[in-house]
This record gives sequence, C-alpha cells and structure tokens, in this order.
Amino acid sequence: MADHTGDANALVTSPDPNHPANRIADLCRLFYTLGWVTGTGGGVSIKHDNHIYLAPSGVQKERMEAFDMFVMDYTTKQYLRRPPVLKPSACTPLFMAAFTRRNAGCCIHTHSQWAVLVTLICEAGLQNPANFNSRNVFEIKEIEQIKGISRGGSGSDEIAEGGRKLGNLGYHDTMRIPIIENTAHEEDLRDTLEQAIEQWPETCAVLVRRHGVYVWGKDVAQAKTQAESLDYLFQLAVEMHKLGLKWT
Amino acid sequence: MADHTGDANALVTSPDPNHPANRIADLCRLFYTLGWVTGTGGGVSIKHDNHIYLAPSGVQKERMEAFDMFVMDYTTKQYLRRPPVLKPSACTPLFMAAFTRRNAGCCIHTHSQWAVLVTLICEAGLQNPANFNSRNVFEIKEIEQIKGISRGGSGSDEIAEGGRKLGNLGYHDTMRIPIIENTAHEEDLRDTLEQAIEQWPETCAVLVRRHGVYVWGKDVAQAKTQAESLDYLFQLAVEMHKLGLKWT
Amino acid sequence: MADHTGDANALVTSPDPNHPANRIADLCRLFYTLGWVTGTGGGVSIKHDNHIYLAPSGVQKERMEAFDMFVMDYTTKQYLRRPPVLKPSACTPLFMAAFTRRNAGCCIHTHSQWAVLVTLICEAGLQNPANFNSRNVFEIKEIEQIKGISRGGSGSDEIAEGGRKLGNLGYHDTMRIPIIENTAHEEDLRDTLEQAIEQWPETCAVLVRRHGVYVWGKDVAQAKTQAESLDYLFQLAVEMHKLGLKWT
Amino acid sequence: MADHTGDANALVTSPDPNHPANRIADLCRLFYTLGWVTGTGGGVSIKHDNHIYLAPSGVQKERMEAFDMFVMDYTTKQYLRRPPVLKPSACTPLFMAAFTRRNAGCCIHTHSQWAVLVTLICEAGLQNPANFNSRNVFEIKEIEQIKGISRGGSGSDEIAEGGRKLGNLGYHDTMRIPIIENTAHEEDLRDTLEQAIEQWPETCAVLVRRHGVYVWGKDVAQAKTQAESLDYLFQLAVEMHKLGLKWT
Repeated sequence: MADHTGDANALVTSPDPNHPANRIADLCRLFYTLGWVTGTGGGVSIKHDNHIYLAPSGVQKERMEAFDMFVMDYTTKQYLRRPPVLKPSACTPLFMAAFTRRNAGCCIHTHSQWAVLVTLICEAGLQNPANFNSRNVFEIKEIEQIKGISRGGSGSDEIAEGGRKLGNLGYHDTMRIPIIENTAHEEDLRDTLEQAIEQWPETCAVLVRRHGVYVWGKDVAQAKTQAESLDYLFQLAVEMHKLGLKWT
Repeated sequence: MADHTGDANALVTSPDPNHPANRIADLCRLFYTLGWVTGTGGGVSIKHDNHIYLAPSGVQKERMEAFDMFVMDYTTKQYLRRPPVLKPSACTPLFMAAFTRRNAGCCIHTHSQWAVLVTLICEAGLQNPANFNSRNVFEIKEIEQIKGISRGGSGSDEIAEGGRKLGNLGYHDTMRIPIIENTAHEEDLRDTLEQAIEQWPETCAVLVRRHGVYVWGKDVAQAKTQAESLDYLFQLAVEMHKLGLKWT
Repeated sequence: MADHTGDANALVTSPDPNHPANRIADLCRLFYTLGWVTGTGGGVSIKHDNHIYLAPSGVQKERMEAFDMFVMDYTTKQYLRRPPVLKPSACTPLFMAAFTRRNAGCCIHTHSQWAVLVTLICEAGLQNPANFNSRNVFEIKEIEQIKGISRGGSGSDEIAEGGRKLGNLGYHDTMRIPIIENTAHEEDLRDTLEQAIEQWPETCAVLVRRHGVYVWGKDVAQAKTQAESLDYLFQLAVEMHKLGLKWT
Repeated sequence: MADHTGDANALVTSPDPNHPANRIADLCRLFYTLGWVTGTGGGVSIKHDNHIYLAPSGVQKERMEAFDMFVMDYTTKQYLRRPPVLKPSACTPLFMAAFTRRNAGCCIHTHSQWAVLVTLICEAGLQNPANFNSRNVFEIKEIEQIKGISRGGSGSDEIAEGGRKLGNLGYHDTMRIPIIENTAHEEDLRDTLEQAIEQWPETCAVLVRRHGVYVWGKDVAQAKTQAESLDYLFQLAVEMHKLGLKWT
C-alpha cells in the first residue's frame, strides 16, 4: 500500500516553484491573506498528469508545506502518498467532480464571506422577491469583470466549435452561478454538486449556501483568476445591494 | 528571586520558530496585520509544560521580540523571568483562567472591531428585541465556519465520551458565546470571566462588551484557528445585520 | 519584423529597478494587493523616450516579470518586442490616447470596485436625481485629497501660463471626472475615451461605467499617485453616499 | 547656509534602524499599507534632541529613503539639511505646534478616511442633531481602546501630580478630539490648530474637517500607537453610526 516512504515523498519534492506540491502551499498562503481560508477553512487541489495533489484537512493554510500534501492516483483513486498524522480533505470528492466532469486541472474551495453573503441575499429573496428561482442562482450582468469567466470554467478562451458557444462570457452575457444547499457533512455535498455541474454546463463554479464556493479551471492560472474574478463580483454584488442597486 | 539573568534568558532563547517565545512574537506580528492588536491592545499567552509565556503590556505588538517575554511558573505563579522596563500584561489573570479551568495551552485576546460591534448590536437588542437574554450572548447557526469551533474550546475534535457531546460544533448546532460587561480595569474582569467559563461549558471564548474577545485552545494552532473562525463569524454577523438578516 | 530576439530582449533587460519593464512588473504586484487588477483585469503602460512598454493581456498581474513586456515604437506603432505566447493588452489604444493627447508618460487602468460603484451611483442618479447630466460625470469638492490631482493629469504642479489655470486642483475646486459607457470590446472604447479627453481638458482620468478607470500622469510617480488619490476619493464618495452625505 | 553637503548628510546616515531618518522612512511604508498616506498625502516628523526630522512634501511615501529627509534646527528654525529637488512639507508649522506646545517628540499626520468620515458625520450633525457644539468635536466613551490615549498626548501613563489628572484616559472617561475647519493652504491651519491645542489641554490630536488628523506623542512609540488607537476609534465610530448606535 502506498504511504510516505521515500518513493512517495519524491512525489512532493521538487525545486520547481510551479510543481503542484509547492504551488498548493503558495496558493494557500495567498488565499489566507485574501480571507478565503480563515481558520483552516477552504482548500485547493491540482491535477497533474494522472496525479491529484490535495492539501490536508484542518491545518493552518498559511503554514502549509509541500511535505504536507496528499497525492492520489487519478485512475485508481488510491492514495500514493498520505502524510502521517494529517487527514485528507473532506472536499476530495467535490474536487474530483470538477476533474472528472469538467476536465479541470485545478479546483479551489473558499469560505469567502462575499460568497456566503451572496447566498444569503439570494436565500432571503432580497434582490428579486417575485422570482422564487432566484433563490438558487446568483445572476449578474454588465460588469466588465464578467469577461474574466469562461463558459464551463475549464475551456479555452477562443470562441468556436459547432453550434455551441465557447470561450469567455461577454459583457452583455448574464453570468449565472448555481447555489446548492449546505449539508451537515462536506462529503454529502457531492451528489447535489455533481447535479449542479451537469445542469449548468456554462458555470465555472458552484456556490454552497452559508458555506462558500467551489471554482475550477483548466489549470492553476485559470482556476485562480476565475476565483478572483468571482470573488470580485460577489463583493461588488453585496455592495450594490447595500446601495439599493439591482444585479441584472 | 527570578529575574532577567542568564538562566532566565535561556527560557526565551531558542532557534526553534515554534518555541513559545518566538511563536508569541510571530503571532503578534500576524495579529497586527489582522487589526486585532492595534495600538498595543490585545495579547497572547502560551502554556508550555509548567511555564506560562506572556507578551508584555503596552508595547507595539508588531515589534515584539522573544526577549520581551515574561515567563511565569504555572504552579507557584511566580515570574521566572521579568524583562526590565516592561510591565506584565493586565490580562494575565484572564489568561490563567483559561489555563486552569479549561486546560488550555494558548489563550488569545483581541480588540477586533467585529467582536466589539457584535457586543454592541447585542447590547442594543437589535437582532432580537423581544429576548432580553440575547443581550448577553452572541448566537449564530447554520454557517459552515461554525464547524471550526470545538466544544469547550480546548478539546479534541473527536466525538466520544460518556453522555456528553465532545468534539467540534456541527453545522446545525447553535454556537453561543457569552458576553460579559467591561470593567474599568482589565484585571477586574477575572471574576465574571471565570463565571462565564463555568456557566458556558461549551464555549471556546468569552466576549467582553465594548472591549474585545478572549479565545483559547488546547495548543497554539487550535487557539489561533478558533480565534480566526470566531472573527470570521463576528464579521459575517455584522454584515448580515446590515443586510437585515437574522443570525439564528 | 520585430520579435523576441536578443536585440528585442535587451529592451526589457536592465538591473535598474526604475527601468520601465521592471517598474511595470513592480506596479502590477502593488496594484494586485490594492485589488485594482484582480483576475487579470486592469493594466499599466509606460512611455520611455520613443518606446511604449505594455503589460500583456490576460495574465496574472502579480506574477508578471520584465520579460513578459511588449515594447512598441511610439512613432511607427510597430511592436519592437512581442513575447511569444502572450497577447498584447486590449487597452493599448486607450493608453495611446493618453500618450498622444495629453503627453502622458504613464497610464494606469484599474478595475477598482470603488470606481465601478461610483459609476453605478451616478448611473442611478442617486446623489443628484434632478440633474440628468450628473449621470455622466463624477463630481466632488472640498476634500483635501483633491489637491493630489493635477489639471489635465500630466502637467506640472506650478500655477502659471497665460489665461488658463495650470497646476493641481485647489481645495475649493470641484473635481470632475467624466464617465463613458462601457462597450462589449475594450478597443471599442477608444473613440468615446478620446472624445472625453478632448471635452474635459482638466481631467486626469476617465471613468468607464461598470468597468473601471483610466488615469494618467506625466511620469510613473504622477500617474500612480493620482490613481491612488482618485481611488481614495471614489471610496470616500461611496462611504459618504452610504451615510446620506452629498459629494458637492 | 546649511545644505546637502557631507556634514548635512551625516545627519541622516546611520545603520541604526531607530535613527529618526530611518524610522520616518519605515513609518511611511507602514502608514502606506494602512491607507493613511495614499497619493503623497500625510506625513511624519520626529524631534530628536535639538533636531527636527521631516519627510519631504509630495513624494510617494512608501518609497521614501533616509536620504530624502529634511533636518531643521529646533532653536533657530533653520534647515540643517535640504535634499535637492525635494520640497519641505507644508505640514511643518503644524508639526512644530505639537513640538513647542506639547513637548511632543513625534507628530503624525494622516488622511485616513475614517478620520475624514468622522468629521463629516459631525459636520452634518448626524449623531447629535440637537447639540450644535457637537459639530466641532468628536466624542466617544466606554470603548476599551480609549485607554490607549494619554491626556494631552505626550504625557507619561502614570496618574499623579497636583490637582490635575495625568496619564491615560480611563474606560469611563469621554474622549474628546477637537475638529477645526480645513483651509485652502495647509500652512494656514496653523493658527486654528494652535488654538485647538490650547483650548483642549487633554487632547492628543486635532481633527481637520474633510482632511484628516494630526496626532502626537512624547516619542515615536506613543505617537504611533495613539494614531492607531484613534484610527481604530474613528473606524468603529463610523461603523457604529451605520448601525444606528450612539457614540456617547
């Protein structure tokens, strides 16, 4: 069985700052300063070839090191490396959903307060009281930052292919991010999160009510910049709401 | 009598960044960037074996060095090291309450504005005007970050033992943090703080009206991540209140 | 044709931290921490002698290096250096407008939320409902920070010359920043941005509705400090509006 | 006449990080991150023996070096060192008021938005409409952070001496900071600022309407921590006002 022997350790040992194990530690430090992973919340996972790199559960994200990472075989779903003492993230099945259903290369989970507040404003129907459906989806349009979001979350930014639009959203498109209800245990979110991914082929993210958001991208750069653009839009939406302005 | 001689200095001299004297200095620098210890406010104490490490009073927290730390013998309550010029923190008896009554390994005191604002909202009865008791306790539920809080503050995160629930709060639990009234002198908070600790066995913290919060944990990691999770919840609660949303 | 050969690379290679290629990378890192270039948004350009230095499009601004910069010949508008893979910024024609029409030495484009919120408050006529013109210009007066803004944006801070006032705005002057409507494609902003520059000779910036702001200066220091002063005024204006206070 | 010769340069050249020239540069970098000196606004001055160290006017505060500092002889008011190109701060006569009238060792001037917003709330009489005097003084009480403020601003924190109270404010004291009206030119604030200092012997600071605040202390540590405590109280006061809560 795979473990933390020398061979397994080689999976997380590299002088390259872009190696997935180093990159996750870096991202966690950055996300801590953004308030996304306060108090051990949130997480990041990178798919690299056939390996899934995962930050551990319940640790201080800004103090993480490459040596703390779990590594899973994408095909067999077996851990190739399990750091002693640490526990794998409860988000693992949720990250896997983005890898398998969207061919993502990186998935980010934050507890950003702006994400949580947006789900609360929707829940209470404060923006659009007449439309019950608005409780389960965050919609905004005609804000430049929307152009930072790709259709489906992990596509190229080219517009092409068959009858279906690809590439990033345009300024006049309405961005829609589905909201699913939270559950007592994080792993129990898997079914509804997978359903939301299927039901909303253009989304790059799923909001979880009173909890946070999952965002993915084809690689680290796209996942990270989409997470930033979304958080910008969530924050702007809350401020707009305070000023009495409508999102769409 | 103990003092700042060579033997006493050895208590705060270590190349290990996790040595309590180094760790307190690091935490103070971090807390300064979070706005928790502005203008010499707030403090941190770590219990290590039979030694209590304490940051001094009235100094700039972001400029603290290991050499500025007081060290007290836990059994005799005598100082083993007193840096010249500096004064011991007025919070010392309050930190001791967490060490003796909850077996904590670390206690953090912040002047976070979110903590103060939450106590003001409760004082004015703005969230729950009909319930007079709501003035003396902060309550919130069904926010994912609550799961970062342990019952009693310094327990393990396992659920076990006899008839009483242990481990961390669940998503559907209501988190309750008692609020005590401030006093003219910090040391005079001891009695009411100790009473609150006794009266609220599940709390990991005590809010002090118009002042801030005391948070503890079994070790530095737990105390710090609980302080972060609480601050996240206080901030979210203030934002929820501005949006007209209820906490429970 | 110009490219990324050795000669072209020499244009961006210098040990001098004030070399334009190094300075743009530094500014992008700083602007990332200010929330101005979240998720690849925004940009910076510097004119140095007859060369225009430009940050690339769609990249993580806080990870930019001197080697990522485009260099254009100011006279011929031909690229002297194009980094492989990267795309030139869609803002390029907008930066050129400040260089050609205001003799600017540096132009900064941010997606600051404060800028966007100010354009939204104006759009909805919330500050000055009776005056339809107020929808297309942000006006504020009698705030000390206005004195950080120069008439025209790229002048000296001396007051002199003919019948027309030069130098910085005074405390009792009203600062007016025109707002133009956003377009689906950034390059399509050129005509209205150039018109706004012509029509408002005293402005140092143009706001773009639901998008952000373009700010210029005679050199990096003036462009950057004016961008900061404006952002300060946008933020203060939003906070004043929340408190029910008028901007003029 | 004194200038930037070798002798004058010796006044600002020291390996000691606590040398006034180095300390001012450090403080400016810190204050930039706090938003106090955005866009060249604000300033700092330190009195060291018979020398007054002053940051120059109109420069980027976060890029300041010891070599940029002006040095004035306290007795003769002549500059002992004037860096070429740079201009002395227009705040100089205001800093001098704190040195001469309060025996301060350091004076800090910020453009903090919280300070400005507090003066605007007072100007509009929003907290206390019935009391016209409340327009010209910021008052708050029963917030723990008030204990970080010394009576007069540059005293010791001991309570002693004759019939008059010294030392820091207590929790039940009302902190009062006078507000003076802004003028077109910063140096014209001198008379009203000096009057305010005379008229309010217990204040450690003077607010300038729509402009910012001057804070002093007996040394750098006291001036800086009082500036932080005040800014904390200004921010808290604005947030309290948004929640409908009274300051006194």
